Amino acid sequence: MADYPEVVYLNGKIIKSHEAKISVFDRGFIFGDGVYEVMVRIDQRFFYKKAHMERLQASLNKIGIAYDVDALEREIPELLASSNLSHDDCLLYIQITRGVAPRKHAYPEGIEPTVLMYALSKKLPDINAVHAKVVTTDDLRWLRCDIKMTSLLGNVMANEYAMANNCYETLLVRDGQITEGSHSNVFFVKDSRVYTHPANTLILNGITRQIVLELCGQLNIEVREEAISLKDIATMDEAFLTGTATQIASIQQINNHYFYKNEAIGTLTQKLQTAFLALKKQKELN
Amino acid sequence: MADYPEVVYLNGKIIKSHEAKISVFDRGFIFGDGVYEVMVRIDQRFFYKKAHMERLQASLNKIGIAYDVDALEREIPELLASSNLSHDDCLLYIQITRGVAPRKHAYPEGIEPTVLMYALSKKLPDINAVHAKVVTTDDLRWLRCDIKMTSLLGNVMANEYAMANNCYETLLVRDGQITEGSHSNVFFVKDSRVYTHPANTLILNGITRQIVLELCGQLNIEVREEAISLKDIATMDEAFLTGTATQIASIQQINNHYFYKNEAIGTLTQKLQTAFLALKKQKELN
Repeated sequence: MADYPEVVYLNGKIIKSHEAKISVFDRGFIFGDGVYEVMVRIDQRFFYKKAHMERLQASLNKIGIAYDVDALEREIPELLASSNLSHDDCLLYIQITRGVAPRKHAYPEGIEPTVLMYALSKKLPDINAVHAKVVTTDDLRWLRCDIKMTSLLGNVMANEYAMANNCYETLLVRDGQITEGSHSNVFFVKDSRVYTHPANTLILNGITRQIVLELCGQLNIEVREEAISLKDIATMDEAFLTGTATQIASIQQINNHYFYKNEAIGTLTQKLQTAFLALKKQKELN
Repeated sequence: MADYPEVVYLNGKIIKSHEAKISVFDRGFIFGDGVYEVMVRIDQRFFYKKAHMERLQASLNKIGIAYDVDALEREIPELLASSNLSHDDCLLYIQITRGVAPRKHAYPEGIEPTVLMYALSKKLPDINAVHAKVVTTDDLRWLRCDIKMTSLLGNVMANEYAMANNCYETLLVRDGQITEGSHSNVFFVKDSRVYTHPANTLILNGITRQIVLELCGQLNIEVREEAISLKDIATMDEAFLTGTATQIASIQQINNHYFYKNEAIGTLTQKLQTAFLALKKQKELN
C-alpha cells in the first residue's frame, strides 16, 4: 500500500505532511494546471536525475510556467535529511503548479508557482520479478501525452480499470494501436526485434523507455519505434513494461493472450533486465 | 478581473477564503481527479439549478465518486448568507474531488470526497452585448469531454490561446470539425437553420446549449445537431456562443472571417437572445 511521507517540501519550507496544505484556489486543484516528475534514488544517487530534471523543465516550458528547476535541485539534500532518507533508497516526487489565483482559465500574470516535493522510502528489486497480467482499453487521453501534467483523470480511470480487473496495468489503444500503459511505456519483441510506440505527442517518453532504447543499441538489438496493433498482440514473442518504479516488468498476459504459460520470461526481456541491473550498479551515473 | 470570494464552503464548514486550504495529497491537486459545476443566481433563484445539480451528479457517477449532491444543496442558503449574497445575483462554483489519499492512480477505498463551494457577486447583463472575436485551434482534449472534470489543462491552454490573441474565446477543431469553445458551446446559423455539435463524448452538453435547443423548438426554428467543418465557416450566416455566464454571445469574427462588418447581430441570434432574456424573467423556473 502507498503511504504518506512524514514531511514534504512545500514552497521553500519543509513541514509535516499532515500540515502541508495549499489554497483551494491553487490552479493545480481547480484546473489540474501543473506538471510533475518521479525519480528514484539508488545507492546514494538519483538514477538519471539529469534526464528527469530536464524533462520537468521541458514540461514547465510547454505549458508556460516560468520556473527554473535548477533552484529546486539544491533543496533536495535537506528534504532527504529531514525525511531520514539521506542514506536510503527512495522515490522522489516533484510537482509544480501554476500557483494561486482567482478562477479564470487563461494563465494569470504575476503569481508564484506552487512547488511540492517529497521523498518516500522505496527499495526497488534488483530485477522486477512481476509477471504482469495486463488489460487493454481505449486511449481516451488528450493529444499532448508528451507533457507530464497533473490533469491525469484519463490515466487514473485507465489505471482503475486495471485494478478492477486484478491486473498490473492497462495498455491504451488509440485507433487500433497500442500507445502505452496508464503509467508506463510498453515494448514488444518479435523475431528478435524490439518494438515500441514512437516518442511523439501520443505518449510520455519515459526515461526508462529511453534507457531501454540505449541498452538495445549497446546490445546490438534491432529497435523499431513503431506502434503495434491490438490485433497483432498474439503474433508477438515477448512484451514488457517500463517505468521509473516498474523498471522492466515482463508481461505474461494481455487480455486473453498468454505469452508464457508459466513464469518464464522471454530472452530479450531477460537480457534487457540484466543490462538494466548492471546500469543501476554503475556508480558514475547521474 | 476575477476575484476571490470572501468565504468558501469547504467540507461542511464556511471559512474565510484565505484560510481555505486542502491537503497537498488531495487527489484534486495530485491527479485533477474531480468534477465541478457553475451556476448563476438571478432574481433570488438559481437558473436551471436542477439541471446543473443533475449534471454534477452524473459527472460524479461517471468517474465513480460516491457522493450525493442532494446533501450539498441544503448548504447553499447558509453559504449565500455568509457571503452577503442572499439577495444579490451571483455565481455559484461547486467542486468535488475524490478526496485525500497517498498518491496512487487507482481509486482508493474508504476516503471522503473533498467538497468546495463558493459564491461570487455577479450581475449578468440582460442580453450579452459582446460581439465576440474568436480564434480556432486543434482540439487536443481527451475523448470524454461530456464529463465536467477538473483535469482542465487542455481547456486552460485553449483559453490562453484566445487571450494571447486578444480574443473572447477559442473554438476547438477535431478532425476538421468544430466541437465547442474552451469553456462554451458554439452554434451556427445557415439558411434559417441552427447547427451545433451533437451532445456526444466530444463536447460538454452545456445547460445553456440545452436551453437554446429548447427555445428553438418553441420558436419553430429548425435545429440540426451536426458538427460544422472549419472550412465551411465562411458559408455560415451567423454564429454564437453559449454558456452559463456567457449566456448567448454573438460571434462577430472567427479567425479572418467576419460575420458582420459592424456591430450588427444576426436575426436568429437576436431572436434567441430575446427569448433567453424572457426565460430569465420567468419566476417559476428552478
